[in-house]
Amino acid sequence: MKKYFVTGINGFVGGYFVDYVFSVEPDADIFGLGIEEGTKIKNIQYKSVNLCDKQMVYKETAKYKPDYIVHLAAVSSVAKSWGSPAECFLNNNACFLNLVDAVRQNKLSTRILSVGSSEEYGFYDEPMKEDFVLHPKSPYSVARLSQEYLSKLYVDRFGLDIVMTRSFNHIGPGQSTQFVIPSFIDQLVKIADGKIENKMMVGNIDVARDFTDVRDVVDAYYKILKKAPNRQVYNVCSGKAVKLREIIDNTSKQLGIKPNIVVDPARVRINDVKLVVGDNTKIKQELGWQPKYMLQQTIADIIKSYDR
Amino acid sequence: MKKYFVTGINGFVGGYFVDYVFSVEPDADIFGLGIEEGTKIKNIQYKSVNLCDKQMVYKETAKYKPDYIVHLAAVSSVAKSWGSPAECFLNNNACFLNLVDAVRQNKLSTRILSVGSSEEYGFYDEPMKEDFVLHPKSPYSVARLSQEYLSKLYVDRFGLDIVMTRSFNHIGPGQSTQFVIPSFIDQLVKIADGKIENKMMVGNIDVARDFTDVRDVVDAYYKILKKAPNRQVYNVCSGKAVKLREIIDNTSKQLGIKPNIVVDPARVRINDVKLVVGDNTKIKQELGWQPKYMLQQTIADIIKSYDR
Repeated sequence: MKKYFVTGINGFVGGYFVDYVFSVEPDADIFGLGIEEGTKIKNIQYKSVNLCDKQMVYKETAKYKPDYIVHLAAVSSVAKSWGSPAECFLNNNACFLNLVDAVRQNKLSTRILSVGSSEEYGFYDEPMKEDFVLHPKSPYSVARLSQEYLSKLYVDRFGLDIVMTRSFNHIGPGQSTQFVIPSFIDQLVKIADGKIENKMMVGNIDVARDFTDVRDVVDAYYKILKKAPNRQVYNVCSGKAVKLREIIDNTSKQLGIKPNIVVDPARVRINDVKLVVGDNTKIKQELGWQPKYMLQQTIADIIKSYDR
Repeated sequence: MKKYFVTGINGFVGGYFVDYVFSVEPDADIFGLGIEEGTKIKNIQYKSVNLCDKQMVYKETAKYKPDYIVHLAAVSSVAKSWGSPAECFLNNNACFLNLVDAVRQNKLSTRILSVGSSEEYGFYDEPMKEDFVLHPKSPYSVARLSQEYLSKLYVDRFGLDIVMTRSFNHIGPGQSTQFVIPSFIDQLVKIADGKIENKMMVGNIDVARDFTDVRDVVDAYYKILKKAPNRQVYNVCSGKAVKLREIIDNTSKQLGIKPNIVVDPARVRINDVKLVVGDNTKIKQELGWQPKYMLQQTIADIIKSYDR
């Protein structure tokens, strides 16, 4: 029976990861951490912990002695990282360093999954591969890149066991409408149901991104955790660029509506990149991962998750 | 009359920087910060401030409204950064972020000098140029590299005025004997004066490094501060690789002794690199900087600084 220590358990990915683990390891022991008072996730232990609290992180890690740490907690909004750059950068790195240093100081043989971001790459107009030179363009991306560098140092110097991702956009039922796709689908569903007028507020929808269903993402995380050699980094992505406009079209078709699209200047991001797409050859070839959810299906499931 | 805000004023470089500024701008207004209770440096204002204390940094910056911030404060020991990686990384970045964010939030037009390190490059067996890909190999180097990335982001996004260095080893009278060259010269002077037995304790002395006299370093910092275009990074280095063995030989000759060299395993660093040398073409060509102190002269001045 393996023991999983999952940070950011109440975030978008947490619940899906737990479901995935229980589906393949019904007797798994999962300890979730979050900053909220409790969790809605069933059959796990839970503790409200501020990961910046070093003593607490050391204590809980020493007590639980996890086989795996899955570090999902992060200030994951690029926009927020521009609002308070110092806080974003420091919080993200402090939490991560507290975790790896707890494993080191407690002399545990825990394998750690460090979740990074496609944002580490910066701007490329081609599918990005793991060996590309990284050019982080926001405090959030610098934090993610530092986390990757620090991970490698902890492996090389202290013999820790750390595997890493550079995760691209993920989508699925339950994601906060602060993110672009949930916000689009939310508006479209409300338009279809006559709850708001037919005015679809958007930013620049001709930019293309690489979307992976969150259920495929947790499958990738699990495979990386179980099969990846120590110190390796994997893109987690679909390998396909999809324009935001296509997602609106696809969703509208499924809902049977024709939305009136209105560009809201407040939603047009400064320095928005035209294309972000990853190359997923490495994770496919080395770990046998393959995305299973087509975009159409993901959108259908998001629509279905509404109480209409 | 220009106003300088100098952090880490009581460190090795601080006093030299102040001397340099007063030599060319006798009416300069200098405000030094340090964590110590006071300073021995004459004719400056001084305040004991913990740069991790954000409110204090914001307040002092707003009050003083410096034309220049010269950020010399740092946990600058690679060895220490391995002892407490989390602290080193976070402290270095927190201090820096507090400073740049104070300039941003207080809407100042201060030019900031961000001091980085040759350690950002990682290992190359040729003279390292500013456009090389960076491969940081210690928590200290990751912190320095993050500082550089964050500097560029603050320039690009918030219009701050930040110039950067990657500084190689510097030496000169007054440097702590925790560093390798002062420790060597200290031993050799004591051997010459009969204060210790003729047993020169060393680590690996066949490694070569790039040493610049601290007086040339502050000249470089001043020129970067006054002349460099915004957002530029400059190597500060001699461009010459010198083996530690040569420094021992040169010092011994000046002292007229023949030291017995003993390798102390405790002084042999793990992963010690054979060669670290920088290319200084950029700072020479763009800013007209030129090192003035020959190694022989620097060693003579260090020897002279002893009360024999």
